[in-house]
Amino acid sequence: MIIIGEKINASLAGIKLIVQQRDRASLLELAKTQAAAGAGFIDVNVGTGVGSRDDEIVSIQWAIETIQEEVETPLCIDSADPAVLEAGLKARHGRPSLINSTKAKEKNLEQVVPLARRYNTPLIGLAMDEVGIPKTVGDRLRACENIAAACEKHGVSLETLYFDPLVIPISTDIKQGLVTLMTLAEIKKQLPGAKTVMGLSNVSYGLPGRTRLNVAFLHMAIYAGLDAAIMDPLDEALVGAVKTAEALVGKDRHCRRYTRAFRD
Amino acid sequence: MIIIGEKINASLAGIKLIVQQRDRASLLELAKTQAAAGAGFIDVNVGTGVGSRDDEIVSIQWAIETIQEEVETPLCIDSADPAVLEAGLKARHGRPSLINSTKAKEKNLEQVVPLARRYNTPLIGLAMDEVGIPKTVGDRLRACENIAAACEKHGVSLETLYFDPLVIPISTDIKQGLVTLMTLAEIKKQLPGAKTVMGLSNVSYGLPGRTRLNVAFLHMAIYAGLDAAIMDPLDEALVGAVKTAEALVGKDRHCRRYTRAFRD
Repeated sequence: MIIIGEKINASLAGIKLIVQQRDRASLLELAKTQAAAGAGFIDVNVGTGVGSRDDEIVSIQWAIETIQEEVETPLCIDSADPAVLEAGLKARHGRPSLINSTKAKEKNLEQVVPLARRYNTPLIGLAMDEVGIPKTVGDRLRACENIAAACEKHGVSLETLYFDPLVIPISTDIKQGLVTLMTLAEIKKQLPGAKTVMGLSNVSYGLPGRTRLNVAFLHMAIYAGLDAAIMDPLDEALVGAVKTAEALVGKDRHCRRYTRAFRD
Repeated sequence: MIIIGEKINASLAGIKLIVQQRDRASLLELAKTQAAAGAGFIDVNVGTGVGSRDDEIVSIQWAIETIQEEVETPLCIDSADPAVLEAGLKARHGRPSLINSTKAKEKNLEQVVPLARRYNTPLIGLAMDEVGIPKTVGDRLRACENIAAACEKHGVSLETLYFDPLVIPISTDIKQGLVTLMTLAEIKKQLPGAKTVMGLSNVSYGLPGRTRLNVAFLHMAIYAGLDAAIMDPLDEALVGAVKTAEALVGKDRHCRRYTRAFRD
C-alpha cells in the first residue's frame, strides 16, 4: 500500500506559518522526514484559509519548487481550486505527481479532469457530489461512476484514478464506518483497474482512544482493498498496522517486511 | 460477537494436570474468571492425549458437572470423539451448550449431526474434509456445504450451525490469511442464516509480535462477518479488538460499549 504523507497541510497552524513565512528549512524538513519514513507521495496543501487565490498560487509554486530541489519523492498537489492545482502541476516541471482532487460536481470535473489529461498525472476522485457526501454506498458509488465517466470522456484512463470513498466520524453516525468500507469494496468490484485511497483519522473523531480506532479501520480497509492512505508516515502505530495487514492479506512474501519490522 | 472462552483445554500442560488430578477448585476458577470476563460459552476439552476413550468420557462428565454446579455460562463441549461429545451432552442435564465439532467427513457427520438433533444443541462445523484442510476458498466452502447438507438431512437447522473457516499460519503459506477471510465472507453469503466462528491465534504461529497479528486478523474477520471467536476472554488486546471492530462496523449503538471500555 502507498502512503501519502499528510503533514504539509496549511490548515494546520504550524504549517500555515511555514507557508506564510516562506520557511524553506522547515518545509524541506517536513518533506525529507516523510520521504525517509517511506512515503510514496508527499501531499502539499498550502491553503491557509486567508489570502487570495493568487496568494495560494504563489505559495504552491514556492512549495513545489522548493521541495523538488532536494526531494525525489513525487508530490501530491492538494487544493480545492483547479487554478491552484494547475499552478502546482506547472511548477513540478514534468516530474511525477498526483492531483488531489476532484469531486463528482460538473463544474469541478470539467476543470480538474482535463488537467489530469494535459499533465498526464493520476487523479484522486472523491465519492461526493453537488450536494455533499452521500449517506449510502449506492450514492457514493454513483459519484465515483460519474467521475469515471468524465474521465473516459476526457481520455483519462481508469487505471490512473484513485477513488476516495470518504470517511465520516462514527460518533455522528454509527453506520458510516461500514458505509465507507463497503463503498471501497464496491469500487474495487465495479470499477476494476481503479485504485482506492483514504484519509483515516476522521473515523474516530469525537471518541477516546483514536489511534486504536484508526488502526483497526486501516486493518479492515486494507482487507477491503485499500491501495493508498493519506496519513502520517511517521506514525508508528499506523505504519505498523499497514505492515501487519499486508502480511495477513498475502501482500508480503514470506512475511519479510513484517518480520524485519517486528523482529525485536 | 460471542466470545467462546478457550482456556479449559487439556492439550495445555497445566489444564491436563487439573483434569488428571480432578482439581475442582482450579477448574472452577478457570470457568468463573472466563464467565466474569464476558465469555458467552466456555469451551471444555479434556482430551489429555494419554489414556483411553473411557478416561476421556469420565473426565468430560466430571468437568461438565463440576462447572455447571457453580457457573451459569453455557459450555462448549469440545472433542474429536463423538462418544465423548455425547457423554458431555448427557452430563449437562439439558442446560444450553454448543457442540465442538464436526468436519465434512461422512463417518463424522453421521455420528455428530444426529447428536445436534437429539440434544437440540447448536453445532460447530469445520471447513475440512476427509483429506484435511483444503487450500482454496472453493474447497473449504464445499466442505461447509456438505456439512449443511448433512444437517438438512438430519433435520438440523442452518441457523444452529457455526461454521469455522479454519486458520493456517501465514508463515507456512502467505495466502492463507486471505483464504480464511474470504471463506468466512462466502459462508455468510452462500449459507445465509448460518453463523461463523474462528480460533485466531494459529494465524500468527512462527512469527514475532503474535498479538499484533491476532488483533489485526480479528479486526478483519469481524468486518468479514465473524459471529463468534474461540479465544481468551481475559486477553485485553483481543477483547479490546472486538469492541473496537464492533464500533467500526456499526454493531455498537452510539459507541457506548467502546466508550465505556476506553474512556480513560
